[in-house]
Amino acid sequence: MTSTQQTENESALILRDDREGIAYLTLNRPNQFNALSEELLENLQKQLDAIAVDKSIRVVVLAGNGRAFCAGHDLKQMRTQSERDYFQQLFTRCGKVMTRISTLPQPVIARVHSIATAAGCQLVASCDLAIAEEGARFAVSGINVGLFCGTPSVPLSRNVGRKQAMEMLLTGGFISAQQAAAEGLINRAVPLDQLDAEVLKLAQSICNKSSASIALGKAMYYKQLEMGVEQAYQFASEAMADNMMFSDVGEGIDAFTEKRPPNWQDR
Amino acid sequence: MTSTQQTENESALILRDDREGIAYLTLNRPNQFNALSEELLENLQKQLDAIAVDKSIRVVVLAGNGRAFCAGHDLKQMRTQSERDYFQQLFTRCGKVMTRISTLPQPVIARVHSIATAAGCQLVASCDLAIAEEGARFAVSGINVGLFCGTPSVPLSRNVGRKQAMEMLLTGGFISAQQAAAEGLINRAVPLDQLDAEVLKLAQSICNKSSASIALGKAMYYKQLEMGVEQAYQFASEAMADNMMFSDVGEGIDAFTEKRPPNWQDR
Amino acid sequence: MTSTQQTENESALILRDDREGIAYLTLNRPNQFNALSEELLENLQKQLDAIAVDKSIRVVVLAGNGRAFCAGHDLKQMRTQSERDYFQQLFTRCGKVMTRISTLPQPVIARVHSIATAAGCQLVASCDLAIAEEGARFAVSGINVGLFCGTPSVPLSRNVGRKQAMEMLLTGGFISAQQAAAEGLINRAVPLDQLDAEVLKLAQSICNKSSASIALGKAMYYKQLEMGVEQAYQFASEAMADNMMFSDVGEGIDAFTEKRPPNWQDR
Repeated sequence: MTSTQQTENESALILRDDREGIAYLTLNRPNQFNALSEELLENLQKQLDAIAVDKSIRVVVLAGNGRAFCAGHDLKQMRTQSERDYFQQLFTRCGKVMTRISTLPQPVIARVHSIATAAGCQLVASCDLAIAEEGARFAVSGINVGLFCGTPSVPLSRNVGRKQAMEMLLTGGFISAQQAAAEGLINRAVPLDQLDAEVLKLAQSICNKSSASIALGKAMYYKQLEMGVEQAYQFASEAMADNMMFSDVGEGIDAFTEKRPPNWQDR
Repeated sequence: MTSTQQTENESALILRDDREGIAYLTLNRPNQFNALSEELLENLQKQLDAIAVDKSIRVVVLAGNGRAFCAGHDLKQMRTQSERDYFQQLFTRCGKVMTRISTLPQPVIARVHSIATAAGCQLVASCDLAIAEEGARFAVSGINVGLFCGTPSVPLSRNVGRKQAMEMLLTGGFISAQQAAAEGLINRAVPLDQLDAEVLKLAQSICNKSSASIALGKAMYYKQLEMGVEQAYQFASEAMADNMMFSDVGEGIDAFTEKRPPNWQDR
Repeated sequence: MTSTQQTENESALILRDDREGIAYLTLNRPNQFNALSEELLENLQKQLDAIAVDKSIRVVVLAGNGRAFCAGHDLKQMRTQSERDYFQQLFTRCGKVMTRISTLPQPVIARVHSIATAAGCQLVASCDLAIAEEGARFAVSGINVGLFCGTPSVPLSRNVGRKQAMEMLLTGGFISAQQAAAEGLINRAVPLDQLDAEVLKLAQSICNKSSASIALGKAMYYKQLEMGVEQAYQFASEAMADNMMFSDVGEGIDAFTEKRPPNWQDR
């Protein structure tokens, strides 16, 4: 096994580093611009599944190692295949990783530097929150190689306007971090040297909340998005009534009234 | 009954003032930052129901008395309760008031100053239109006391982008009036000393339209939003054909052709 | 037949000019601000149907002749009618033309100058992409003559935020090209003297893609918009697996790897 193959073994494809309730997941194929090979997707799925049941983790930060955040699918690996079934399974697996982010109890923040293209842009769109450095650029560039970014268009078109998503999909062109922020793809763009501090600040502002309430709320949020308003209200009213039964709410209101920090039970 | 209790009696919780076809409704619990107690919600519902059948009213302006627009639910009142059923009924009642705004024949403009938080922010999101003063700030801050703003997320996520709504919900943090305008939560932010004039100008521009057509159109608008494009077109084509049968349309086209102001029959 | 009547005959209502794979369709009732008469709508439908099966056309540019892009329905023609059935058929026909743009295999770019009002604004909203000159203005102005712009609200409310669309619909007022770009109604506003160059640049960036993949992707895009996320992913994964079977993808990836321009087979 060569040195290159060793860095490509499963355990190293995603780095995980836990600090103060935050799990930092780093895509780790720097020489391939963190392309989402089958193995990397499988590893990312496993990491997310493990975090889902890890009570010590309150927020996840997703980043990329090396020169880019993520360049999308691994075109070289794909080119070695020719069966339609293989591709459908690959895209389905990729979609499952993306939706696992939404179903995770903990919020996931994308920390984006350099470029996020094709399924890499999809990954940003799929995160609950995203902060990018000002020089970051975003594209759904599959059409440049003849492959319309169909699955990336699913979360992209649920983040930005129709015409804005359509232009990106039809031209494969880049948008800037500023444009991505204005259109809704990311929460904001900050100078590169402030990126880690801004991501940490956002992560911490979530860490000091009741994680049980965050988990209930995140799940509720995505479900109600797909309902009509009347059904959404019925569903959200039930979820909030459930939330009111958490002891954290009584503590939270008392702390607010007494002007002191809350002491969450689930922490 | 103390003086404080008197100012809290039902008739005073919402002030109504009608001027030139505009009903000004003012939330009137200034010492509680206009918190939406059960009694206030019930009173607001009654006021809206009365306006719905009042042909003299063409536009509603919703404002808050005192130092804030609205700080959301009345946490002190909620803390006296412990039954899940109570809370579910409270949130359901609140949701009914919010959707009553959408089903009202007359357009409702939120006039926002200072802060609009939690269900107060929901109220802004639920209005058809909203103008805020530049210093106004918006938050869905329930998570700060351990209660994820589930029902506020329903109209909020139908006004602004997913990630923008998610950040507000997870962090409980404020956004400025400028950001609220850029993201779609309000129509625009104006200097405080121009707020009333801008609200009046917007209200008057609607007052001088055919109110029968406005009522038909507003109802149509919200219904088609929940349909697929094909069904929405079918539904909207029928509503417009109905609208064409209003005598106001013939008058409107004739007035336009003759370059004179229209004389709406229903006025 | 007078000279005026001659310029109104069917063959002249829409001008078509093909250049280098781009079909330029021009609304041609300049003296009526390109109002969408029955005859014009019928002609536009025919032109789009013909382009749909024309393999030489890769992109469509839609423009208006004379002083305006399009002022909406032909009010004078409508005023000669009084039957509800007539109007329902007219609005349904108009809706079919608008949705034909979305179902066309080729992307359609609106080239907007001066004003786009009522069904003219609907036309812009219905195009896949839109570039306007900086002086262009947009309104759904039907309410000014007592007719709420119901069918225009269908694509408008799927391009811009709810409150932003609502204000336009209730007031009939204009928004600037800059505002239209910020809200998502158009892709961008450019100086008038750069309008044709910018439209051409955008068209060409699509022309040099695999048109088979563009057609597959465009159809997929609009369908998945109306699905929940899970169903959308399933559908998009299948479409992308289909796309992978196109010989253009292998060629595209090889060209990318070999750093040379792709030679699309379907070109």
